[in-house]
Amino acid sequence: MAQQQQQPPAAQLEAYKSFQYFLVTAVVPGSFVVHVEINRPAKLNAFLEAMWLELRALFRQLSTDPDVRAIVLSGAGDRAFTAGLDVQAASQDGALQGAEGADGARKATALRRHIYEFQECLTAVEKCEKPVICVLHGISIGLAIDLSLCADVRICARDTRFAVKEVDIGLAADIGTLARLPKAVSSFSWVKEVCMTARDFTAAEALAVGFVSQVQDTKAAALESAFRMATLIASKSPVAVQGTKELLNYGRDHSVDDSLRYTGVWNSAALQATDMKAALLSGIQKKKPRFEKL
Amino acid sequence: MAQQQQQPPAAQLEAYKSFQYFLVTAVVPGSFVVHVEINRPAKLNAFLEAMWLELRALFRQLSTDPDVRAIVLSGAGDRAFTAGLDVQAASQDGALQGAEGADGARKATALRRHIYEFQECLTAVEKCEKPVICVLHGISIGLAIDLSLCADVRICARDTRFAVKEVDIGLAADIGTLARLPKAVSSFSWVKEVCMTARDFTAAEALAVGFVSQVQDTKAAALESAFRMATLIASKSPVAVQGTKELLNYGRDHSVDDSLRYTGVWNSAALQATDMKAALLSGIQKKKPRFEKL
Amino acid sequence: MAQQQQQPPAAQLEAYKSFQYFLVTAVVPGSFVVHVEINRPAKLNAFLEAMWLELRALFRQLSTDPDVRAIVLSGAGDRAFTAGLDVQAASQDGALQGAEGADGARKATALRRHIYEFQECLTAVEKCEKPVICVLHGISIGLAIDLSLCADVRICARDTRFAVKEVDIGLAADIGTLARLPKAVSSFSWVKEVCMTARDFTAAEALAVGFVSQVQDTKAAALESAFRMATLIASKSPVAVQGTKELLNYGRDHSVDDSLRYTGVWNSAALQATDMKAALLSGIQKKKPRFEKL
Amino acid sequence: MAQQQQQPPAAQLEAYKSFQYFLVTAVVPGSFVVHVEINRPAKLNAFLEAMWLELRALFRQLSTDPDVRAIVLSGAGDRAFTAGLDVQAASQDGALQGAEGADGARKATALRRHIYEFQECLTAVEKCEKPVICVLHGISIGLAIDLSLCADVRICARDTRFAVKEVDIGLAADIGTLARLPKAVSSFSWVKEVCMTARDFTAAEALAVGFVSQVQDTKAAALESAFRMATLIASKSPVAVQGTKELLNYGRDHSVDDSLRYTGVWNSAALQATDMKAALLSGIQKKKPRFEKL
Amino acid sequence: MAQQQQQPPAAQLEAYKSFQYFLVTAVVPGSFVVHVEINRPAKLNAFLEAMWLELRALFRQLSTDPDVRAIVLSGAGDRAFTAGLDVQAASQDGALQGAEGADGARKATALRRHIYEFQECLTAVEKCEKPVICVLHGISIGLAIDLSLCADVRICARDTRFAVKEVDIGLAADIGTLARLPKAVSSFSWVKEVCMTARDFTAAEALAVGFVSQVQDTKAAALESAFRMATLIASKSPVAVQGTKELLNYGRDHSVDDSLRYTGVWNSAALQATDMKAALLSGIQKKKPRFEKL
Amino acid sequence: MAQQQQQPPAAQLEAYKSFQYFLVTAVVPGSFVVHVEINRPAKLNAFLEAMWLELRALFRQLSTDPDVRAIVLSGAGDRAFTAGLDVQAASQDGALQGAEGADGARKATALRRHIYEFQECLTAVEKCEKPVICVLHGISIGLAIDLSLCADVRICARDTRFAVKEVDIGLAADIGTLARLPKAVSSFSWVKEVCMTARDFTAAEALAVGFVSQVQDTKAAALESAFRMATLIASKSPVAVQGTKELLNYGRDHSVDDSLRYTGVWNSAALQATDMKAALLSGIQKKKPRFEKL
Repeated sequence: MAQQQQQPPAAQLEAYKSFQYFLVTAVVPGSFVVHVEINRPAKLNAFLEAMWLELRALFRQLSTDPDVRAIVLSGAGDRAFTAGLDVQAASQDGALQGAEGADGARKATALRRHIYEFQECLTAVEKCEKPVICVLHGISIGLAIDLSLCADVRICARDTRFAVKEVDIGLAADIGTLARLPKAVSSFSWVKEVCMTARDFTAAEALAVGFVSQVQDTKAAALESAFRMATLIASKSPVAVQGTKELLNYGRDHSVDDSLRYTGVWNSAALQATDMKAALLSGIQKKKPRFEKL
Repeated sequence: MAQQQQQPPAAQLEAYKSFQYFLVTAVVPGSFVVHVEINRPAKLNAFLEAMWLELRALFRQLSTDPDVRAIVLSGAGDRAFTAGLDVQAASQDGALQGAEGADGARKATALRRHIYEFQECLTAVEKCEKPVICVLHGISIGLAIDLSLCADVRICARDTRFAVKEVDIGLAADIGTLARLPKAVSSFSWVKEVCMTARDFTAAEALAVGFVSQVQDTKAAALESAFRMATLIASKSPVAVQGTKELLNYGRDHSVDDSLRYTGVWNSAALQATDMKAALLSGIQKKKPRFEKL
Repeated sequence: MAQQQQQPPAAQLEAYKSFQYFLVTAVVPGSFVVHVEINRPAKLNAFLEAMWLELRALFRQLSTDPDVRAIVLSGAGDRAFTAGLDVQAASQDGALQGAEGADGARKATALRRHIYEFQECLTAVEKCEKPVICVLHGISIGLAIDLSLCADVRICARDTRFAVKEVDIGLAADIGTLARLPKAVSSFSWVKEVCMTARDFTAAEALAVGFVSQVQDTKAAALESAFRMATLIASKSPVAVQGTKELLNYGRDHSVDDSLRYTGVWNSAALQATDMKAALLSGIQKKKPRFEKL
Repeated sequence: MAQQQQQPPAAQLEAYKSFQYFLVTAVVPGSFVVHVEINRPAKLNAFLEAMWLELRALFRQLSTDPDVRAIVLSGAGDRAFTAGLDVQAASQDGALQGAEGADGARKATALRRHIYEFQECLTAVEKCEKPVICVLHGISIGLAIDLSLCADVRICARDTRFAVKEVDIGLAADIGTLARLPKAVSSFSWVKEVCMTARDFTAAEALAVGFVSQVQDTKAAALESAFRMATLIASKSPVAVQGTKELLNYGRDHSVDDSLRYTGVWNSAALQATDMKAALLSGIQKKKPRFEKL
Repeated sequence: MAQQQQQPPAAQLEAYKSFQYFLVTAVVPGSFVVHVEINRPAKLNAFLEAMWLELRALFRQLSTDPDVRAIVLSGAGDRAFTAGLDVQAASQDGALQGAEGADGARKATALRRHIYEFQECLTAVEKCEKPVICVLHGISIGLAIDLSLCADVRICARDTRFAVKEVDIGLAADIGTLARLPKAVSSFSWVKEVCMTARDFTAAEALAVGFVSQVQDTKAAALESAFRMATLIASKSPVAVQGTKELLNYGRDHSVDDSLRYTGVWNSAALQATDMKAALLSGIQKKKPRFEKL
Repeated sequence: MAQQQQQPPAAQLEAYKSFQYFLVTAVVPGSFVVHVEINRPAKLNAFLEAMWLELRALFRQLSTDPDVRAIVLSGAGDRAFTAGLDVQAASQDGALQGAEGADGARKATALRRHIYEFQECLTAVEKCEKPVICVLHGISIGLAIDLSLCADVRICARDTRFAVKEVDIGLAADIGTLARLPKAVSSFSWVKEVCMTARDFTAAEALAVGFVSQVQDTKAAALESAFRMATLIASKSPVAVQGTKELLNYGRDHSVDDSLRYTGVWNSAALQATDMKAALLSGIQKKKPRFEKL
């Protein structure tokens, strides 16, 4: 369904017109679902510095946009979700440009500032208050893993070629994969293996370890499934959904005791929504509930 | 085996006679195994406030009962482990009854106190010193997930219909699921998906992600498997078993370094049990060991 | 390949000649891969106290040996990776020997010191800066689980018989399994089950829950796969690989925020390696990169 | 002022009549301040097991009593706040009574359960939602330190004789002092000194290290100061005061980042009180504000 | 010395010309020390929303300005460091403006977003890589405490009137005081007292509990002392000084074990500075060392 | 008293004869108190690498020596506790010796290993199970602060000249001061000040902020006070004293909840000592109790 609307390409949503590297479109008008596409297909959607800075600005805007309740994130074109960092460009702009000739400590300061900014740009996806469903296909390596781990749900096409590629260019991944992957999948042995060998892994393997929770035959089918899921989520109470996202992310990083305490405080405000009443009433009336914006 | 003893229904154990909503029976006399049934089958074992208060009292008593070494928890009747909160009743008793007309902060205080008490009642199952094996069947939604996550082992019948249902009634789950689920199963993507869509999931899916560790064809078969496992566990050193439960729960919530330190202190007392000698001796003598009560 | 070199048995590497219970050999000269074998096959590689003390010394030496970039750890002989603690010997040397007649507090002090030293010996494998791939086969119970959980990757032969055996000798496992297993595999329900029942589990089950990430038909095939993986890892930048190990272990035990912060500091020095340049250049030149020792 | 009302002794408040070892009186009718006295002066207010169980029940009731906004806790009689545990009675009732003849592990279980219950009774004072001002005088040793550390503010008379007395009876303090004291005062060196020597320390020393924040000449003057402070606190917004208590206790135990996050969630509900408006208005009108009950 | 340069008022530093509410001047040309003044003296330097947004931008710029090595922060005019939030303005702009008529949950979301942004603006001072010395004088209440706790060192004039004022306007402080104060001073009893009573405290009291580390007779003397300290700090290795700031802030929030680990990684890069050589050499040559910019 | 025994110098205790840089003597035979002196007075007790390696070995031996119950640590000679690192020697042996010409990452690895070993040597003093009272006098800078922070109690002579000196040689302190000082004293502002300026501070200032808990007129008087305190501590139950040390160190680094849980487990074994009975009995009999060795 939503699928068809892609030919001819949907127009960038008015409020997001200024973004250059990301195409932001409405999936179905009124559905509160937006589709964000990484839009540099000629270069396999490889990331330039300008792109991750734009990513941060984009997801901060989406985070508080009352007309958005669920986001689908994918890569434009047939060949790649993203081939990761545009290494050629990166070697030119260089975090160390200003640090040429500096001593090891000063180079480290320049690098640290650069890494923190890069990390923050990706983390903006995780911190986005609205749920993000990531659709991967084709080449999905390096930064593709870091980025998709900031999304809430990962779905992929059968042809996806995954790799935690960083060791192959001589570095330990530093923008999120090593921090998030051990907490996202089932097997620490497998995590170590793919991160230290940089070997490819398939959609089937990604499903088996829980990195993705669905595999679809094609990119189109994966997108359609994501739109369906996003539309379903967007039809529910945004207070409930956004609270669920926040509390699950908190739960991942804290002890059960700390989580329960935080949950109690969180819901002491959230339960004052009108949503519960609306949900219960619509259940009785067999109507679709309507929730206030958030 | 144990199964047959259910017709005619086993009598409530003397020490647990006062409980109204839970049927507590001996599985096999002398086996140190008790069977706890949520006993409101006419209402799909849906929970009233009186029930979760009783649940806390029950598991606190079981926790230190020297005649109990393993507990099987299930729902009475054919249709449901539990259909969750009795929403109709909940909307009447209401944590907010006394807070009508109060401002947002005062309502929040009433709600927070209510949530904390509710959480504490379920946590009593996790804090119970004795292992708890939970058998799920039929409808197992909402509170069913929160509750079963407080048990140590989860087994289900093939017909079980699971759902983290809370967003469908307009709220983020707040009595444990969001705190415990990310640490209990294999895929954070899957966790986000089921918690944000509230969709049903099957026994097969529950097994695949590790939510349950066994699926049996029927409720009866699941119960029989649970009784067998409980009997096996109850035949082992209670010092070893209860220490294992405590240390695994601690391990889930702490760093490896902290866990190792805590383990050293814990076992500095536990290794002074006579159980190791009894276990080793019985191994040599090919006899079943007998352990002191705990 | 490497496999064949085992007949006649490879000679202990010069630098590791002093070790009595471990055979340390080069897999392929110049590959930076060493093979460590627990070498007490007549006793199913069961551990004496002298062995775990030697294990600590061995892995501390390997940790900073610039000629080592990956380690394969296995058990000598056909029958067992290790049958665990040599219980008979343990009951004789006895941590409590000097504590006979002491009161409960003084016995506890002796036991605590003993447990901490034992834990530290195994943890030396986890703290070893170089990646460790563990190959399990045959009997792999008790200490076999504790030890292999300190390795980075676990591969096993189809005939492996696993068990968290400790409760069967009357104690809760206290040298690592209960601290590390909940963070290494997919299902907390399964962890509780195998730790509290001490039942055997198979290679297939180990793979399903993610305890191992590969099952091979025979020990020889498992070893060959491990050698291949180790050789692959050893061909990559050691700065990248060792950083990856450190950051993943850190990630397991800390919140995502803390991990990102630590990663930034770590890589502010690591990115000053010449390895990235070497890796990129070799990519362009289609040659195998050569990295400085570490 | 409030002071005079003590002769003839004020009557136990109606709602707290059932408490045997604690005298609960109103300081000034309508002031929302209650005075709790440990009331076993003939025995220097030494604690029996029945007393700490009663303490828990009492502070749980005070915690949610809408007519209470501040609590002053002191000891009846001239000679002691409390001389600590009634050692003679303790040696008779004995946590180990049922564990005579048991092995070291089983004794440990009995002791652990006992310690946890005892800790929980004192922690009820810390968890009480309302601020507690503790007035110490005369003998204030052992449990006096554990208990007063659960209060929010400590004031003492000049004659107070403090000691962390536990090592003198052969044990490390286990009901709170060692957990709370390092976070309550200024000098870790001093903490180690008084806890390991069990020596007395004076009111002046207690003030210098920040254990108390005021010293008054007599018990009467200390009480009067406490009543004044309690009355002042009780005149403020209870939403603000109780939130302050909660957030400071949370801050003590968490990182600044975690605290700021928790604070944001807490105040997102608390700021919906009508109190801010009432406070601002009364400032303009130069009238005393009136706040809704909590 | 530096003092005299204030009449006529120093000109805003070129690079900081765009800031409206903060006057940024050089203390002594070439000293790497800048003076930041909150510059709204007619309103007692009370904060508008535009001011805390500007504060964030300002300290982010200072953080990476290679010409800055130490910062002195004070309030313009004779009467106040800052009288805190401009309550009148705050009640007009209102975080809740858009949330009028919204339910409790939606109001909470608006408030939470607002609090987090406000917190982040102040935290920018703590996160500034360069040391910040705060000089307080006159009225220093409410936000004055939150803000100064983000500085590294606090010095005050004898006339300073401090208060944690928030409960007096009906709320618990939520932009940092309750998270940072318990970790900054000596007495938890005193912290509770001043936070729950909102009473004034003097410079002498602030010194006694360690809130400030110096009291000077006048604002001018306090400023002069701060300039001297800043100049001294700015004469030292910026690698050493900025590392010290980072490691102390980390140390406050983590266990000693975690801190030692982080420190090792931090200094593994920092020790590659040329500064140590320069410092040692200048010690030998009795010359003032010259350090590269950072 | 003990003081006099220093002329002629007491002989090194038999069991500690092999130590070259530390003089280990008995304070009073049979008192269970030993005196450890840093013994390189001609060089102001400045530390060589061999010394900190010896320090680790020494305190590990003391930790489990049953004839030791309290330790006094001081510096030999009149002029210095220790002048810190022997910078001249350090610049020669050099952690980077083998890393000359290496890239920044490889240098970092060498430095990190070196720092961790150095940290571990000092931490051996903190981990020593027996209490350590540190007496400082004369020059006490740099490493003197790191080292004394690992002791339990700090006492100093009036002439002591303290400084956190590291920034003056171009580095942030990395062997413990920045991790431990913020948790040991009263004022975070003061900590930042002395660590970033490297300025001297006096005994009076050290007392005011709680860095030391006693100042005595001379080194001799400080030593005498330390011997008295050590003798007092050594006369008490070693189970109680050593438990107190462990629980206070644990308390410093964990939340109150975690500490209470750990305390319960610790004392479940410790309370099985005969010491409590001995202590109570001796109280009744007015005799000095005698405790079993530990």
